[in-house]
Amino acid sequence: MPNPTAAMLVIGDEILSGRTRDANMYYLAGELTKIGIDLKEVRVVSDDAPAITAAVKALSQSFTHVFTSGGIGPTHDDITADCIAAAFDRKIDVRDDARAILETHYKATGSQLNEARLRMARIPEGATLIDNPVSAAPGFTLENVHVLAGVPQIFQAMVASVLPALTGGAPLLSQSLRINRGEGDIAGPLATLAAEYPDLSIGSYPFAQSGAFGAHIVIRGHDGAQIDAAMQSLIRLFPNDAT
Amino acid sequence: MPNPTAAMLVIGDEILSGRTRDANMYYLAGELTKIGIDLKEVRVVSDDAPAITAAVKALSQSFTHVFTSGGIGPTHDDITADCIAAAFDRKIDVRDDARAILETHYKATGSQLNEARLRMARIPEGATLIDNPVSAAPGFTLENVHVLAGVPQIFQAMVASVLPALTGGAPLLSQSLRINRGEGDIAGPLATLAAEYPDLSIGSYPFAQSGAFGAHIVIRGHDGAQIDAAMQSLIRLFPNDAT
Repeated sequence: MPNPTAAMLVIGDEILSGRTRDANMYYLAGELTKIGIDLKEVRVVSDDAPAITAAVKALSQSFTHVFTSGGIGPTHDDITADCIAAAFDRKIDVRDDARAILETHYKATGSQLNEARLRMARIPEGATLIDNPVSAAPGFTLENVHVLAGVPQIFQAMVASVLPALTGGAPLLSQSLRINRGEGDIAGPLATLAAEYPDLSIGSYPFAQSGAFGAHIVIRGHDGAQIDAAMQSLIRLFPNDAT
Repeated sequence: MPNPTAAMLVIGDEILSGRTRDANMYYLAGELTKIGIDLKEVRVVSDDAPAITAAVKALSQSFTHVFTSGGIGPTHDDITADCIAAAFDRKIDVRDDARAILETHYKATGSQLNEARLRMARIPEGATLIDNPVSAAPGFTLENVHVLAGVPQIFQAMVASVLPALTGGAPLLSQSLRINRGEGDIAGPLATLAAEYPDLSIGSYPFAQSGAFGAHIVIRGHDGAQIDAAMQSLIRLFPNDAT
């Protein structure tokens, strides 16, 4: 059976303007790979309601899971929850269980649960809350969409809350080899090797370092023994250039 | 007149598997912002022909420019050029001008222009070559799609070859202020400020540092004087918490 699939939707003008370097994509990609959910696509869109809603609809129809990042805070530019509700044609309002979580948290920290903070208790009808052990305000899952915060520390905590409940597949295994020769020199034999192992994915990732070119060859698949065999063949192909 | 728009398409399994942290998105976002081309969407897809072709079609129809990154090297997993040709229903073959560039380069470096390297001279019909001062093998522009290499050093050099020829708009200006208070405390006044300046985009980017919460408020727009005025108002709103 093929692995479950996933897409990620990063919401935020700050990424698209080059102000902030996204960190959540890299983190989520690694975590999903470990549990055998194949991340197939990532989209980054701006804080724009039609763009967010359209992307959520498209991705939720194409993949087993969708993870969103960003736009669920208390400020005016946090519009993700409303967009998710709109994408699934659900009502959205302050929900008692989410409000109770915020009340407990702000009472303990001595802050006031004002109107702005109460926005974070607005949850689309039918959604399940996602625990936020860092700053309390919950994420939520609606249908196959998991809605998480954008601050990396909170995003990571929410990922840890969500992933254990999901059904994973066969973890993607990989081995890699650095070859200190230009891709053009290794491409021919590499293509032959790739054809010999149709169940494996053999990728070549070139680099340029101090004026010399080389490539990291990464062999990925679900069968560890097959990866071992392909890696041995690869080493035999380039005995003097592999490190 | 509104600014020209752009989308980016990152092609590569290594990003989606969490092996590699993408660097090109952040770079391109910053460069486009400087010249007044608004980056509206980024997609990351795997080395999969139907996924690449579908994304190129969708993005090229929706935005003024599309920039792709990755998949134009000599190895078997480099399929971007063929996918771009397919997206626009063009023939693709080794082209004389591209071959001449490679011949000159490999002669000078003492390498052989073998069959694998010659793949990098395959250019879709009607495309314009993009200069690659790092490793010679050219990128190309077909219709509104600019096809660039994935290695960051080469990607950046190709961006420098392409951007000067594009018509930019009004550069997006921005000022930012760090406020050492939780977003929930500042959200109300901030929303009022945002409503007073409908031509500006006022974003709040929360952070958590040593257990304390705060936010960077970024005011963006095309009118420097208006941004100055909004920033002065913002400072007056939070005189004791801004740094």
